[in-house]
Amino acid sequence: MPIYNAPLKDMQFILQDVFKAETFWQENHNLAHLDMATANAILEEMAKFSKNVILDLNRSADEEGGAEFNQGEVKTPRGFKKAFQQFAQGGWIGLGANEAWGGQGMPKMLTVLADEMIWSCNPSFMLYPLLTVGAGMAIDQAASEEQKATYLPKFYTGEWSGTMCLTEPHAGTDLGMIKTKAVPNSDGSYDISGTKIFITSGEHDLSENIIHLVLAKTPDAPAGSRGISLFIVPKFLINQDGSLGERNTVSAGSIEHKMGIKGSATCVMNFDAAQGYLVGKENEGLAAMFIMMNYERLSMGIQGIGASEFAYQNAAQYASDRLQGRSATSQQSPDKPADSILVHADVRRMLLNSRANNEASRAFAVYVGQQLDITKFSTDVECVRKANERVALLTPIAKAYLTDKALDSALEAQMCFGGHGYIREWGMEQCIRDLRISQIYEGTNGIQALDLIGRKTIKSNGAFIADYLTEIREFANTMQDSMSIKTVTLDVCVEVDEITKMIIEQAKASPDFPSAVAVDYLHVVGLLSFTYMFARIAQAAQSKSDTFYQNKLVLAQYYVAKVLPDLAARIQRIQAGADLIMQLPENYFTAQA
Amino acid sequence: MPIYNAPLKDMQFILQDVFKAETFWQENHNLAHLDMATANAILEEMAKFSKNVILDLNRSADEEGGAEFNQGEVKTPRGFKKAFQQFAQGGWIGLGANEAWGGQGMPKMLTVLADEMIWSCNPSFMLYPLLTVGAGMAIDQAASEEQKATYLPKFYTGEWSGTMCLTEPHAGTDLGMIKTKAVPNSDGSYDISGTKIFITSGEHDLSENIIHLVLAKTPDAPAGSRGISLFIVPKFLINQDGSLGERNTVSAGSIEHKMGIKGSATCVMNFDAAQGYLVGKENEGLAAMFIMMNYERLSMGIQGIGASEFAYQNAAQYASDRLQGRSATSQQSPDKPADSILVHADVRRMLLNSRANNEASRAFAVYVGQQLDITKFSTDVECVRKANERVALLTPIAKAYLTDKALDSALEAQMCFGGHGYIREWGMEQCIRDLRISQIYEGTNGIQALDLIGRKTIKSNGAFIADYLTEIREFANTMQDSMSIKTVTLDVCVEVDEITKMIIEQAKASPDFPSAVAVDYLHVVGLLSFTYMFARIAQAAQSKSDTFYQNKLVLAQYYVAKVLPDLAARIQRIQAGADLIMQLPENYFTAQA
Repeated sequence: MPIYNAPLKDMQFILQDVFKAETFWQENHNLAHLDMATANAILEEMAKFSKNVILDLNRSADEEGGAEFNQGEVKTPRGFKKAFQQFAQGGWIGLGANEAWGGQGMPKMLTVLADEMIWSCNPSFMLYPLLTVGAGMAIDQAASEEQKATYLPKFYTGEWSGTMCLTEPHAGTDLGMIKTKAVPNSDGSYDISGTKIFITSGEHDLSENIIHLVLAKTPDAPAGSRGISLFIVPKFLINQDGSLGERNTVSAGSIEHKMGIKGSATCVMNFDAAQGYLVGKENEGLAAMFIMMNYERLSMGIQGIGASEFAYQNAAQYASDRLQGRSATSQQSPDKPADSILVHADVRRMLLNSRANNEASRAFAVYVGQQLDITKFSTDVECVRKANERVALLTPIAKAYLTDKALDSALEAQMCFGGHGYIREWGMEQCIRDLRISQIYEGTNGIQALDLIGRKTIKSNGAFIADYLTEIREFANTMQDSMSIKTVTLDVCVEVDEITKMIIEQAKASPDFPSAVAVDYLHVVGLLSFTYMFARIAQAAQSKSDTFYQNKLVLAQYYVAKVLPDLAARIQRIQAGADLIMQLPENYFTAQA
Repeated sequence: MPIYNAPLKDMQFILQDVFKAETFWQENHNLAHLDMATANAILEEMAKFSKNVILDLNRSADEEGGAEFNQGEVKTPRGFKKAFQQFAQGGWIGLGANEAWGGQGMPKMLTVLADEMIWSCNPSFMLYPLLTVGAGMAIDQAASEEQKATYLPKFYTGEWSGTMCLTEPHAGTDLGMIKTKAVPNSDGSYDISGTKIFITSGEHDLSENIIHLVLAKTPDAPAGSRGISLFIVPKFLINQDGSLGERNTVSAGSIEHKMGIKGSATCVMNFDAAQGYLVGKENEGLAAMFIMMNYERLSMGIQGIGASEFAYQNAAQYASDRLQGRSATSQQSPDKPADSILVHADVRRMLLNSRANNEASRAFAVYVGQQLDITKFSTDVECVRKANERVALLTPIAKAYLTDKALDSALEAQMCFGGHGYIREWGMEQCIRDLRISQIYEGTNGIQALDLIGRKTIKSNGAFIADYLTEIREFANTMQDSMSIKTVTLDVCVEVDEITKMIIEQAKASPDFPSAVAVDYLHVVGLLSFTYMFARIAQAAQSKSDTFYQNKLVLAQYYVAKVLPDLAARIQRIQAGADLIMQLPENYFTAQA
């Protein structure tokens, strides 16, 4: 059976040594009640829950075929209901949510670490509370006080759950094309009619009610994305006294058969003049939904870290146990028939790629979490503005770069198992299947890359990335010259600055240029970000003599030597531009050769 | 439902225009009966069989759960038996096999193309005849005339099938550790006892007998890999008159539950004093088995091409049909609600990466096939020697580089579908699951890389790669200076030559160095090989004005601009060496953080 032990010491190192969490919390009035002892206790509790309650349910859910659909009802996998109740009773659903409505108000830089553990142990399970948390956030920020009071407390007790209903069969990335209609009734409610697909947790048996957040168009709405409104559509209508009323005319038509995350019910939802309630104003639904989308996008990055950490731990354990062949230098275990495969440099290379990825990714998630905390908790207007820009810039990196790298990492971990990695028994093949969706949903990684290069970089004329580079340079300049990663970091800043300017310039002349180089640019900024994270890790570790810290310095050097070289290739590709991509006619792609 | 149309025109272009197949066949006495008309007829027939018979069975086999195991018996998926009979009756099993024993004697440069189509349409199905063909080849080259006469004709009619039994629970890569015993009987036969795992087609219902080729150790055998012998162990013993006798004491204990290729039965085989017959001499079994292994290794590369081509075709069709968003330059389909996603440079980038990979891979497979044909059919001793060296050098590239690139390509194709790529309906998620094994089995890609850098490069003191570089340079020098790929090719040769010399030098001082850089070096030689293939493709296309040929030149330029930049990164990583990888202690990898 797969193993998992939460990397608590690494997590605490990142929080406390790298990002000085306690000082940060003390400096922010609204977080001053939090200290590292409390944070550690929370992480330790989650470590137990993840390992003891949901880890084993991950494999059984997959083997038993996942969520089951039968005549509009969805049965979640064996054990999910009890685990979900335990999760809700532990207060985990609202861990980062508004205390005014029953949440625990914990900062994001802490909750990303708790979330990582759940993602490591059971991604299908994680998706049930995740959508509730996202829906709660959208309601908290965009809905009326009455709506908040109605829905949010029920979310955080786990009595009700949430969904986000965006995609339609013909409209995914291009939400301006949605056809779901919202016709106003005389009582202020709307009749919602249409079909939504790929609705995570659209129907299930974990909560007594399901609250759908639905994008739809009113009869006179402007065309395209400016004419989209957001509605609350409960599965069961809610009586004046808060009790559940009659069943609304929304139902699941089927669930998808997927590559992975089989325990998560991905539903086709049919709205047949279902009663809905406007959130905020008409035609402003997309902005409200994007509050939720951005939250989910960071979560997908955490899914990546969780899977990659799980894959690493299992691969390292397998490699340590598996005896095969002999060391190239000297026999390590002469008393055994062979050495452990950890003696082979190629096996170590795969594990170190994975480990370097996990540690940089985790630091990056905490870093973005801290920026989100500044936007939420700081009272300094200029700090909030800057943090908002930083979050806007880095959300596509958190979603797409972290999940791209996580798949690479998990694939290398799977390879450490040889043929055993391909069979169900060791859990690696499920890990890969479950992880793959993180690159696809909540806006494909290609779409994230377009967001980064277009809206976040070209549209700001490079201002967001310039600010980020300034921060990184300032940090690097605080490092001692004897640390090799200082120079590397400053060099990478120069390269990123130059290629960004080149992109902004080229985009003026060639409208296809940004799309042609977007994914490569995403990886450039990702490589920059991981370099920055390793600089911060190295800075935090360098003064400490304990092996734990000294090994962080080795891993940082490994990153520079063996991972960062990808930067040169990415920059070369960007320089090659769009022309060769666009010059072939459309029928070239499909014409039968 | 997934589509597939064999890329016949591309295949014919590679055979005839790039590799001058007809001239080559005319020049080789033993192939002089073959012309392009016959070759084309064979490819066209296989195109029909693949598309019409086995394509649909691929998805149903996966959906129905694959091969079924019940008390030692294996039931293959619905439709496989009929399709296999049709396949056998068409003479396809022995297409490339010795005519003396009922094969068709077709050259490898042709059969790789026929094989690609089967791999595209149904990899699980392909594995049943594949192992038979491999076993046939090992028997043809290493067994006695009597053994050949007994087994080979039955293989090529499909009446009997073959397996290769190497791996044991504790011995995969390190075959020297196998424990299966072969105790000689007085009649010249042996009693074979032991357990073998991961045995493809170890048990099934497609043929009336199954002939296992089994590695085992005789009682007095030397330790390690020098003490391994090869045995034929039939499922049913064979009477003097060739009819089937009693059941031998070999049986399947279970089948594996795998990530993909579920229609292929992967068996645990238990040998309980089963009657076996020595092939060749005692203790020379590994060499005989490697005849088969090398054949399979090239086949795994073809599996990669097949999957990648299938993924490309489906992604291109989906992208052409899917309307979403608008072109960055101008609206392409103003009469429709959106443009096809083929207008987006990022979608084209993914498709072109896939297509460039497929065309270079296919050319490379035909090139290696031609080298194999030289070793088999040429009467020129020096040509045969050189071709043998070339095949030895390039087999790890064919196996590992082609499958690494195929996974990249198929993942990009899957991404073109957005969420639809993750659900069963479109066939992409199955394609990825089925493809992944190609990087793992028949020696993981890491093992292939070690073979390339160790046995093939360092051991020959760089002689094999130097010869290959000479051939490539000589070819490039026949190109006109106006072709940009000429200079690129010559430059790549210089880089590969330099890094190879550096590796050979470093390996003397640091025994771990080769393993640390092996996978990067594999990709360096892979990139060199694809550059060479595109040089040959460009040379064949450049004088023709038809769009089909001119587009080949654009794709070659795309390869140089967008794929080849990976070379710089790979070389940087090699230069970074092994020290950072080896300096961490073993317990670093598993110690709980």
